[in-house]
Amino acid sequence: MRLVTVVYKDQTFVGIVDSDETGILLLNKAEEIRSGKNDFPASMTDCIALGQEFIEKVIDLLSWVSGQGPTSQWYIPLEEVTLLAPIPRPVKNIFCVGKNYAEHAIEMGSIEDIPDHVMVFTKAPTTIVGPEIQVLNHRDITNQLDYEGELAVIIGKKGRAIKKEDALDYVFGYSIINDVTARDLQSQHKQFFIGKSLDTTCPFGPWIVHKSMIDNPNGLDIETRINGEVRQSSNTKNFIFSIEEIISVLSRGMTLEPGDIIATGTPAGVGKGFKPPKFLQPGDEMEIRIEKVGTLRNVIEK
Amino acid sequence: MRLVTVVYKDQTFVGIVDSDETGILLLNKAEEIRSGKNDFPASMTDCIALGQEFIEKVIDLLSWVSGQGPTSQWYIPLEEVTLLAPIPRPVKNIFCVGKNYAEHAIEMGSIEDIPDHVMVFTKAPTTIVGPEIQVLNHRDITNQLDYEGELAVIIGKKGRAIKKEDALDYVFGYSIINDVTARDLQSQHKQFFIGKSLDTTCPFGPWIVHKSMIDNPNGLDIETRINGEVRQSSNTKNFIFSIEEIISVLSRGMTLEPGDIIATGTPAGVGKGFKPPKFLQPGDEMEIRIEKVGTLRNVIEK
Repeated sequence: MRLVTVVYKDQTFVGIVDSDETGILLLNKAEEIRSGKNDFPASMTDCIALGQEFIEKVIDLLSWVSGQGPTSQWYIPLEEVTLLAPIPRPVKNIFCVGKNYAEHAIEMGSIEDIPDHVMVFTKAPTTIVGPEIQVLNHRDITNQLDYEGELAVIIGKKGRAIKKEDALDYVFGYSIINDVTARDLQSQHKQFFIGKSLDTTCPFGPWIVHKSMIDNPNGLDIETRINGEVRQSSNTKNFIFSIEEIISVLSRGMTLEPGDIIATGTPAGVGKGFKPPKFLQPGDEMEIRIEKVGTLRNVIEK
Repeated sequence: MRLVTVVYKDQTFVGIVDSDETGILLLNKAEEIRSGKNDFPASMTDCIALGQEFIEKVIDLLSWVSGQGPTSQWYIPLEEVTLLAPIPRPVKNIFCVGKNYAEHAIEMGSIEDIPDHVMVFTKAPTTIVGPEIQVLNHRDITNQLDYEGELAVIIGKKGRAIKKEDALDYVFGYSIINDVTARDLQSQHKQFFIGKSLDTTCPFGPWIVHKSMIDNPNGLDIETRINGEVRQSSNTKNFIFSIEEIISVLSRGMTLEPGDIIATGTPAGVGKGFKPPKFLQPGDEMEIRIEKVGTLRNVIEK
């Protein structure tokens, strides 16, 4: 089950992408035809917060739809909707794990940079843009804009002091984040926040894949291409800290909430890692593909 | 004008504290008596987002109240309400400036630690508690809990690329934050976020003082007492980066929004700065007093 937030005829809906990725079932539109009621919360965060009840309602609706003859009448063609980020405006900053692949830590400095403890910084919610949305080039304040393809984890359930062995119970699903970074600002300001929080520097999407579709999130191929050239190619099995460990450490003293987003870190191959560096240029196309999740594509403002 | 968020008879209100700090005017209660309408937004963030219109509505209401004879009938005694943090749940993390007083930078390391550029990290919105609310001791995960008294700036108006000379136009008002920090986690995890984001480690309040009451926010005495002992005593004129500069740097590429909270950094005298260190102990009383703003008091869980 792949969940999207879309705009259709000037209204925002939570929807489900069909299996061949050509149509979207708008939950409240379908539910209205079925029962006359707008029974689903309007925002993805509120849907997620319903927990298992939400999943059961969706499954129930999908079973009804599939019994109604040609499903095409229920699915809005993909080209008639605009995909937003699956959570267009989270209720807090995005949690980001720094240096979670050893080879990336080394390319950013040396073997000394491989962390012993989970390193977390955040990106402001104002950074988020959906798939295909242009990323501002910010050329008046940086000339070192860089890409970072990352698997995103979406939290489904409130919790604190979550044990590693229970951590995946707190996950709702997975998505893709491009943690676009101004390297010059990142190093100038020491703490990463400023260089990580320029407007539009968090492409996110195209959808959330429900966790039931992914057996092992710590074993997914991840690849970033810039203008078609493969720059990052790894697998989440190379995480220094697994998703279970990240959730456990983050929640030791801090309550995680439904709709919280964790970007799990980027593999080697960022622009800064090349000699000479390959920073992003106006017009560059960035594509991140993660196995079983999908592809997130955005272009830098010309 | 000092604005509070309070709970009165199980309902949350935005209110104004009277001049001798004994009563609260509940905006929507008073407005209802005056016009029969609940004309003010229910949350402080939504009030602030109204901009000048909000201030004018408040002034208009206060003038009406003052013409109604004994004002005591309009003011709920302070002891009948519970003060929450003035913004109990901001829509994003709190922005925090690190090492913004030279003497504090030195006590945390050496003269090398005085930053050349504004250093910003964040605290999760789940850290916020109001005045008098207990701060969890988190003793299972830290034995280096520390206080940091700070002037907080509340943003009043949306803006990006705000010039220094215009910066104070974007301020709504001022308050106090105690940026309680787990020093061991802060240093273990390198980026400050984890050590700064344990639940309840952001006492905030007791109110927001509207900017019209403070001529120069870069010239206020600030003092922190632990169990009555003065630990931090400075003046915001000792900021390395003024409020204008912080706003200008933060907004260079990131949009600031109404209700955003910026903690401006802490002066010398934190527990870690003493030899031997004076970390917080269960039951410790923390009081931060800022000139023209007020006093924020909280106790560590026993």
